[in-house]
Amino acid sequence: MKKEEILEKTKYYSSWKSDYNYIMSIFSFDLETIAPKAASEEANKAFARIETDYFKVLKSDDYIDYVKEAYLRRDEFPLEYKRLFEMQHRDYERTKNISPELQYEMSLLFGTSYTKWLEAKEKGDYSIYQDTFSKVVDMTRKILSLRGKNKGTLYDICLDDYEPGNNEKILDKFFKEIKEGILPILKKVVLSKVERREDFLEYSVPIPLQEKISNFLLKFNEFDTNRGLLSTTEHPFTTFPSENDIRVTTHYHENMFTSNIYSVIHEGGHAIFGQNIPHKFFTIGLSDNITSAMHETISRFYENYIGRNPHYIKHIYNKVKEICNDIFSDVSFDDFYKGINIAKPTLIRTDSDELTYCIHILIRYELEKDLVNGKISTQGLNLEWNKKYKEYLGITPPSDKEGILQDVHWTGGSFGYFPSYAIGNAYGAMILNRMKEDFDFDKALEDGDLLKIKNWLKNNVFDIAPMNDPNDWILKITGREFTTKDYIDYLNEKYSKLYNF
Amino acid sequence: MKKEEILEKTKYYSSWKSDYNYIMSIFSFDLETIAPKAASEEANKAFARIETDYFKVLKSDDYIDYVKEAYLRRDEFPLEYKRLFEMQHRDYERTKNISPELQYEMSLLFGTSYTKWLEAKEKGDYSIYQDTFSKVVDMTRKILSLRGKNKGTLYDICLDDYEPGNNEKILDKFFKEIKEGILPILKKVVLSKVERREDFLEYSVPIPLQEKISNFLLKFNEFDTNRGLLSTTEHPFTTFPSENDIRVTTHYHENMFTSNIYSVIHEGGHAIFGQNIPHKFFTIGLSDNITSAMHETISRFYENYIGRNPHYIKHIYNKVKEICNDIFSDVSFDDFYKGINIAKPTLIRTDSDELTYCIHILIRYELEKDLVNGKISTQGLNLEWNKKYKEYLGITPPSDKEGILQDVHWTGGSFGYFPSYAIGNAYGAMILNRMKEDFDFDKALEDGDLLKIKNWLKNNVFDIAPMNDPNDWILKITGREFTTKDYIDYLNEKYSKLYNF
Repeated sequence: MKKEEILEKTKYYSSWKSDYNYIMSIFSFDLETIAPKAASEEANKAFARIETDYFKVLKSDDYIDYVKEAYLRRDEFPLEYKRLFEMQHRDYERTKNISPELQYEMSLLFGTSYTKWLEAKEKGDYSIYQDTFSKVVDMTRKILSLRGKNKGTLYDICLDDYEPGNNEKILDKFFKEIKEGILPILKKVVLSKVERREDFLEYSVPIPLQEKISNFLLKFNEFDTNRGLLSTTEHPFTTFPSENDIRVTTHYHENMFTSNIYSVIHEGGHAIFGQNIPHKFFTIGLSDNITSAMHETISRFYENYIGRNPHYIKHIYNKVKEICNDIFSDVSFDDFYKGINIAKPTLIRTDSDELTYCIHILIRYELEKDLVNGKISTQGLNLEWNKKYKEYLGITPPSDKEGILQDVHWTGGSFGYFPSYAIGNAYGAMILNRMKEDFDFDKALEDGDLLKIKNWLKNNVFDIAPMNDPNDWILKITGREFTTKDYIDYLNEKYSKLYNF
Repeated sequence: MKKEEILEKTKYYSSWKSDYNYIMSIFSFDLETIAPKAASEEANKAFARIETDYFKVLKSDDYIDYVKEAYLRRDEFPLEYKRLFEMQHRDYERTKNISPELQYEMSLLFGTSYTKWLEAKEKGDYSIYQDTFSKVVDMTRKILSLRGKNKGTLYDICLDDYEPGNNEKILDKFFKEIKEGILPILKKVVLSKVERREDFLEYSVPIPLQEKISNFLLKFNEFDTNRGLLSTTEHPFTTFPSENDIRVTTHYHENMFTSNIYSVIHEGGHAIFGQNIPHKFFTIGLSDNITSAMHETISRFYENYIGRNPHYIKHIYNKVKEICNDIFSDVSFDDFYKGINIAKPTLIRTDSDELTYCIHILIRYELEKDLVNGKISTQGLNLEWNKKYKEYLGITPPSDKEGILQDVHWTGGSFGYFPSYAIGNAYGAMILNRMKEDFDFDKALEDGDLLKIKNWLKNNVFDIAPMNDPNDWILKITGREFTTKDYIDYLNEKYSKLYNF
């Protein structure tokens, strides 16, 4: 193959991939936001069809010959190409033993699984979903076992797929540090005599007012509303159909207005990351070469290090008072700030505070590890879930809706994703400390200068993301090896101040 | 090819087509409702890609061999299959000289054209769009001239494509009757001394209230909200992505609440038709084998014969009073009914009354006929448009927004579609008279028994639609040949009562 031919094929396939990814993302977005449930079966069938047709092209001789040759000769090309060729080859290795028939079966199963999960969640009854969930776990194990020779466990493959270089040994150590760092702080918080107003967190805020708050926050945080949009869904997510079309979703609860606020800030963080990837990476097809932990670093950076900082909350407070004046007339800024930062064991991960958040992840990590490795089954897994919540947080879900059915991830076989949130928290604390060396972070928040923060992130964090695996990325940003120290120190400092210990 | 093989391929391709049509419809729906404009270029490119890939399958040897063989042997199969094989063969004949490259070029052009039209319409300036529009006309003429030997004009092909059997000669006669029937009535109306309240038609009605009215109307008319949804767009349309996912769109104007009402009733009519096609036609792939005129018959049946009937308007009136009580406190039912049925020359087709509606169509018919046949060019076509409005209706658009840029149809090369609305009006009057032989139509409307009407339409009109070309269809429904008489009689009777002549 001539070098020109490799370049030609790169151009062709990158353009082809972005076209199909655009279309599939929109279809999937539509399904998770507005599509009538009555059409789920037809929709799942259609989606499985296009996903499989896409997969068939990736299995074609033409594509595989190109991928192999480009990979072998990657050193002849500029760095971006080299990176692309490595990524393509990694993906090829991951799927080379999977047939289009199996891919179709899997797509169809994951589609059905989502529909079934929605139904079960609505009814708060895991037994409705368990049978389908078993099939999802079996399919995941089957796919993983087709990966060829593997030194570790099946779950090791999941972890490495999400964050190249990770495995159970590394993550066991990581979660041990997280657990030993957080639980003692939580204990002190729970024993603390400090009291906070919580009543206003349940004040009724009509959805049209909450929508205004959402729109304010997205703009305030420098989300480009011309190149994306906000919609609603059951389980908020962000999707990246195309360079100029990046979509945020949220979910409104009339009696829990902060749920929307922190969803929007979190998902907005993902979107801001996506909107600020340099154009050249879209052209070559590397724009989505960002791991989950890298993405969660940014979304949780916005949600917590920015979003729960007193200076930032001051802006939220002012805007909320402006939009819903009568509703919060008896709430002072001090009430507001401290109420939002209450730490205590709760049931729902996405609505939990900064301190307990990683305990929610720890529970999911322990369960999914055993599930993928075949040490436990889906039978009675809701009870296992509840047992762990009792053990770590001392509370029990009233139904499976607030228990095992709360998250969407496992329904699509995304085992190994959850740790990304915890790793992202730890990465974020390291990035925060590095950022503070360059400018006064609190002052920027006080000034409402989110552009300064975004620009710093763009130059130091976003721009280099597609070219680096997560460990190299954090090293290049901070000059340091990955550690949980910054994160635990941050939590200690924050909560000792808030709870006087 | 064995008979079983033909059946097998029929099953495969029907399923394949419905999957891809589902996906393409959703993408296109998204584009026309919520997609960020900044992504238009990427979106158009993606859409052209999938449309062309779809087209390539229809050009494959496997598909063409199957289509030809099935067509030759159509008499060996049950009637539904025979019909499908005929339709497939007709489509094959239409596209056999079009290459995938030309298809791609056309898709891309029509996508860009829509984007450009939106921009020009917003600015009310035809000159922004004219250059693109020229390309659309040229492309349309090129595609038509590739159709092989043709006895008539290029526009004859357009007409036959939309309504098999139609041609300029038939339509010239049809529009002559329409013109000679309607203009004298309009003259009497314009000269009439009868005065009507029009002020309340411009009362400001907040969009959330209008949304409530929309939802009421869709349900009241028996649209199944579990199997579809309502969204908003620039130019209202209905789309039929799948059997259980049929979507209506509308457009809200705060100072013209009836515009939404009649859009929703009209588009809801299309949707009710789509939702009531027998299941078997979806399975075999004949569900969308319904011509534009057949579809417009039903949408305009709901909009006018039902929607502008006094008994029906009584229900709208009561609901509008209930939802926006304070706003219409000074409006009596008599004001309301007569105000809605005011007939007078206006500029916007979709908001025009029953009487002048077909004059709007006549103008488009005369222009598009000459345009497609190459007798006039797009240069100065906005002025030609204005001239005809002056000639037939005595009024002139203040800008191209209310003139030539008001409609979306031509932007996607849909020349020959407009006559469908006028034909649909005439079909509808024949159907109305036939329906009245079976039950008391006014009584059903008075009782709000829209189910009775829907069921009659289902049994007599919808069920036989996919199996018949329009002329056979109307003959089977009414036992009579197509005529404009019922329609003109209806208008005469209605407006002589309203305007005392």
